[in-house]
Amino acid sequence: MISFLSKDFLLSNDTAKTLYHDHAAKMPIYDYHCHLDPREIYEDVRFENITKLWLGGDHYKWRIMRSNGVPEEYITGSAPDREKFQKFAEALPRCIGNPMYHWCHLELKNYFGYEGTLSPKTAQEVWDLANQKLADPAFSARGLITRSNVAMVGTTDDPLSDLKWHKLLAESDFPTKVCPSFRPDPALNCHKAGFAEYIGKLAAVSGVKIEHAADVAKALTQRIDYFDSCGCRASDHGLDYVMYRPATAQQIEEVFQKAMAGQAVTVEETERYQTYLLLHCGREYARVGWAMQLHFSCFRNPNSKMFAALGADHGFDCIAVTDSSAALHGLMDAWCKDDQLPKTIVYSLNPADDQWLDTLLGAYQGTEVPGKIQHGSAWWFNDNKVGMINQMISLGQLGILGNFIGMLTDSRSFLSYARHEYFRRILCNLVGTWVENGEYPADMDVLGGLIEDICANNAKRYFGL
Amino acid sequence: MISFLSKDFLLSNDTAKTLYHDHAAKMPIYDYHCHLDPREIYEDVRFENITKLWLGGDHYKWRIMRSNGVPEEYITGSAPDREKFQKFAEALPRCIGNPMYHWCHLELKNYFGYEGTLSPKTAQEVWDLANQKLADPAFSARGLITRSNVAMVGTTDDPLSDLKWHKLLAESDFPTKVCPSFRPDPALNCHKAGFAEYIGKLAAVSGVKIEHAADVAKALTQRIDYFDSCGCRASDHGLDYVMYRPATAQQIEEVFQKAMAGQAVTVEETERYQTYLLLHCGREYARVGWAMQLHFSCFRNPNSKMFAALGADHGFDCIAVTDSSAALHGLMDAWCKDDQLPKTIVYSLNPADDQWLDTLLGAYQGTEVPGKIQHGSAWWFNDNKVGMINQMISLGQLGILGNFIGMLTDSRSFLSYARHEYFRRILCNLVGTWVENGEYPADMDVLGGLIEDICANNAKRYFGL
Amino acid sequence: MISFLSKDFLLSNDTAKTLYHDHAAKMPIYDYHCHLDPREIYEDVRFENITKLWLGGDHYKWRIMRSNGVPEEYITGSAPDREKFQKFAEALPRCIGNPMYHWCHLELKNYFGYEGTLSPKTAQEVWDLANQKLADPAFSARGLITRSNVAMVGTTDDPLSDLKWHKLLAESDFPTKVCPSFRPDPALNCHKAGFAEYIGKLAAVSGVKIEHAADVAKALTQRIDYFDSCGCRASDHGLDYVMYRPATAQQIEEVFQKAMAGQAVTVEETERYQTYLLLHCGREYARVGWAMQLHFSCFRNPNSKMFAALGADHGFDCIAVTDSSAALHGLMDAWCKDDQLPKTIVYSLNPADDQWLDTLLGAYQGTEVPGKIQHGSAWWFNDNKVGMINQMISLGQLGILGNFIGMLTDSRSFLSYARHEYFRRILCNLVGTWVENGEYPADMDVLGGLIEDICANNAKRYFGL
Repeated sequence: MISFLSKDFLLSNDTAKTLYHDHAAKMPIYDYHCHLDPREIYEDVRFENITKLWLGGDHYKWRIMRSNGVPEEYITGSAPDREKFQKFAEALPRCIGNPMYHWCHLELKNYFGYEGTLSPKTAQEVWDLANQKLADPAFSARGLITRSNVAMVGTTDDPLSDLKWHKLLAESDFPTKVCPSFRPDPALNCHKAGFAEYIGKLAAVSGVKIEHAADVAKALTQRIDYFDSCGCRASDHGLDYVMYRPATAQQIEEVFQKAMAGQAVTVEETERYQTYLLLHCGREYARVGWAMQLHFSCFRNPNSKMFAALGADHGFDCIAVTDSSAALHGLMDAWCKDDQLPKTIVYSLNPADDQWLDTLLGAYQGTEVPGKIQHGSAWWFNDNKVGMINQMISLGQLGILGNFIGMLTDSRSFLSYARHEYFRRILCNLVGTWVENGEYPADMDVLGGLIEDICANNAKRYFGL
Repeated sequence: MISFLSKDFLLSNDTAKTLYHDHAAKMPIYDYHCHLDPREIYEDVRFENITKLWLGGDHYKWRIMRSNGVPEEYITGSAPDREKFQKFAEALPRCIGNPMYHWCHLELKNYFGYEGTLSPKTAQEVWDLANQKLADPAFSARGLITRSNVAMVGTTDDPLSDLKWHKLLAESDFPTKVCPSFRPDPALNCHKAGFAEYIGKLAAVSGVKIEHAADVAKALTQRIDYFDSCGCRASDHGLDYVMYRPATAQQIEEVFQKAMAGQAVTVEETERYQTYLLLHCGREYARVGWAMQLHFSCFRNPNSKMFAALGADHGFDCIAVTDSSAALHGLMDAWCKDDQLPKTIVYSLNPADDQWLDTLLGAYQGTEVPGKIQHGSAWWFNDNKVGMINQMISLGQLGILGNFIGMLTDSRSFLSYARHEYFRRILCNLVGTWVENGEYPADMDVLGGLIEDICANNAKRYFGL
Repeated sequence: MISFLSKDFLLSNDTAKTLYHDHAAKMPIYDYHCHLDPREIYEDVRFENITKLWLGGDHYKWRIMRSNGVPEEYITGSAPDREKFQKFAEALPRCIGNPMYHWCHLELKNYFGYEGTLSPKTAQEVWDLANQKLADPAFSARGLITRSNVAMVGTTDDPLSDLKWHKLLAESDFPTKVCPSFRPDPALNCHKAGFAEYIGKLAAVSGVKIEHAADVAKALTQRIDYFDSCGCRASDHGLDYVMYRPATAQQIEEVFQKAMAGQAVTVEETERYQTYLLLHCGREYARVGWAMQLHFSCFRNPNSKMFAALGADHGFDCIAVTDSSAALHGLMDAWCKDDQLPKTIVYSLNPADDQWLDTLLGAYQGTEVPGKIQHGSAWWFNDNKVGMINQMISLGQLGILGNFIGMLTDSRSFLSYARHEYFRRILCNLVGTWVENGEYPADMDVLGGLIEDICANNAKRYFGL
């Protein structure tokens, strides 16, 4: 039996242990997609207590508390921090089989040196220990990043951003590269409230007078160039589903004018406008050499009562079932036809999409970099042991696992680097098990190289860092 | 090697063994959803021979015989019972990897004390032994329930039922609680033959004069109150797919009048009427504190020739592929918005739905009970080893496994409690494997408590028993 | 640890080893569905070098090279064979977890006696060794088939074919049975270019004057009878998705006339014509006692640029997401109703379809042969370790694994029989693991019989060989 979270946690055989301890554990982290606030990194913020750190903005933990019947007051409400922590400590031991159980205890162990388990009985002890540590300046944002051996952080940024904090960080002595990522969703969502206002701001910040749909494209190009000059290496699109509805310039313009006038646009109209801008953005990403990230199959804000009360991103989003296959092929083919397909990373929130996605990759690869078209690491609701194993097995069977750019946290937390350890242990155990099963030669040099590539080198090469 | 069906069947490590033998095996059974006939329980029926008991109404076994090329005469036809049993004994050894192989042998071992395996060669021996045992009064319906340590049975009942047998059982000295469940499908299926006639009966039994759609709702409310007074704790809806099509009162009334007049109604019309009544029923369940069960994605009676010959429920139904995700969110949100969402258990027959379902739960939880919204145990075609493991892994990763209300048989057979043993062994092995892999502390008090909760305590609490 | 590709490759327990070595390995191969060229078999072709043999027509290998960033020149282009081989040798070691890694090394070991691994460093050594062996007459097409213990090969043939090479082979002393299979896709694809021309040829070869849709049916019947007289035992339909759109004779005739006139036909029109001919063909297959193979959910030629450059079948096809469930039920029910359902083998390229497919089988079984309706072995993108395991587990849980007709290569290569070894090892390990886990009695006679049946006897019986 392997003791809980011990040195060989999740490593069930000798090959796996060697691969993890001698190779994976030593590699720096390229966390190329996360939601950290660059201002908080620059200002090197600190945290008053573990509730602020853990429960202040973590929708995974909020979901768990709700699933345990905890009233909202103790989740996003006004209950005292210590009481909120107690409610979480009551829920956590029920979460056998949930990655949250592992993430929390890895964080307690790695950052706070706590070797016990969090439960209603130990909550006070953990509260005291963690808060005492958090009072130490080493537990600042930068301190946590540095001790986690993070070589690069990719934040998520609005095209409107002046990237002030990224610039200041680049000028500072902070050794971790903090790169912006370009997420232009608001400019594409002509069906949502606030669209015209957003376009107005985009015009202002880009210096492009926006009167037509084509002007939005021009303004985005300006912002892409600006982001590129600030070290951006990737973009990100958060799509409910993938759409591909080519239209004439006039049709697109009609949608744009309606949306700017605050009139309702149909699903079909929205798709025309979105397809137009998606195609434009992709071509621009290809021009500047960025990677394009496409995230899809998320059903946002299904609980309208809680959305009205708390707003978006409070732990109510779900996996959507969408048929994005034909549309994603349509987009990829359109770019490919004109030799304007950028490096692309696709992520579906629905794991039932894994296999068709992995075959799609193979139809559009290119010579810019091995593994030009990537299937992103198991995302959000799939970012757990079985989700990661399934994504890697599918990718390995249908593509080249050795070219995989590996893990990202997608997180808002400065402690979430424990998830890279989690991923690496799972990766090493998967590979080690194959080797012990006679499925790959036990050549530790080759194997160690593959592991180091997937943990760090591939991402470094892919993003041109 | 673990010998076939030996003490440690399916238990591959020490933690699993301890959890099963010291905790799971001792717990009473709350079989909250089955299809036993309360009359047969009250009258304490007995069975003439093992063919009557095993092959009299078990569509799983019929399917297996058909897959082995057995003529219908030996399945649902008039061949002698002994010959039917022989045909089944010929098919069973081919069924490696099928849960039927395990269920049958667990039943032979647990109830008849037979330690061998059923095959064409042993069929006579098993026939003789089983029939000799069945002659013993201890092998009556009640005897089998009692020796299986069943604390509660939830039957499936039509709103028209007077629940006479449930009342008689409640007044009797039979210690197992036999609760009715409310299954109003015929009142919702306005597109099916016999609808008007059914509504006529509903009016008669409820005492509500039914002239409008709203009167159906009133009549169902009357029946819900009546069922509640007879100990009902749950309802059940068997939906081909989940629909959500809100409509005006006038639109709904039009559908109702057409259907009552025997006119054909369109799919869209049917959905309007069904949505109206589903929403109504859910609100009523919330009022009386019942759990609502929603079963969906079943394709019923696909083989029209065999349906014409044998009728429904003869082993021809299949998994349907439906996109029920958006509609289920629509329903849940509608109830939630008005604070009228009952405790809900969702079951899809398509295992490709597991992940989006498990995320849906988390969007609508409440404070009435931990795990208010549940993903039901692997159902029907998924009620097998891998189906159960996948359902529990998914639930564990995306929700709180410790709050799971666990297994039900959904069966028509008095021997099917062996399936609870099967489930419990699989559960204990899953949890035990996690522990041995370092994924949860080896604290046997905590683990034993979790296992006992999932096996029995959670269901007891959830249904308010 | 099991050494790479050693005697016990993939066999993790003693039962599995015994089942493989004492039973599976000894059985002849019935490769009932492949794409070998009967002319090449008859002429007993030989190969100039390993690039010609391996990279000349293998779209799996081409995909892998593209995923490693290799320029097309080295894939399907004009680069020298030795350089192409080097590029492949560079990609292969990255392919951990890919079945190609195993297939290649099994072929090197079994056919060329090479025990090392292919890498950039060993490429020259392998090139020299393989090419030296290929110079040996024993490495001809027939030599490779014979040493692989192949009892039967089922090719894939156009209804236009005169089956000349099959006849010559039947008259020759070549001991392996080479049976044609009937693949009438071009006659059904009235929406594709070249349809009228094809129908013209069909008229010529069948001697049926084709003026109406019903004449196409007549001509296909003539070809079916001709193929039957030449030893054909199976047909094959490659469908993008399954359609079922019954129509009147007049509607069908209209579609046919439009298509023959070179006019565009709609999706709906195409489906009418295809449904008509599918139903006709199925009835004819039932009459002559063939098995009908239905392959679906493939998205062909998504990359229009590469399709324009290279044509079809060059490694760009992908898994399609289609809802073929209702339509497949429609077809099966239509045949079943008239007692004209042939033996049927269904294959979906989307593994998310496995479960509903396995339940569909059970609704239409018959008494002609055990397992009349089959779920085909994991196909194409699923023809890998996890794909095969999942297909067999699902089939085992929902049907009768003991009646499974097992593996086929679907391959164009004379070395691909290594995939039967791969399948058999995986099968034996799955069954052996069940036995060691207490899930089936360790009766080696019964188990050995089941394994031999799945490896060979079931297919032999199913195809009437």
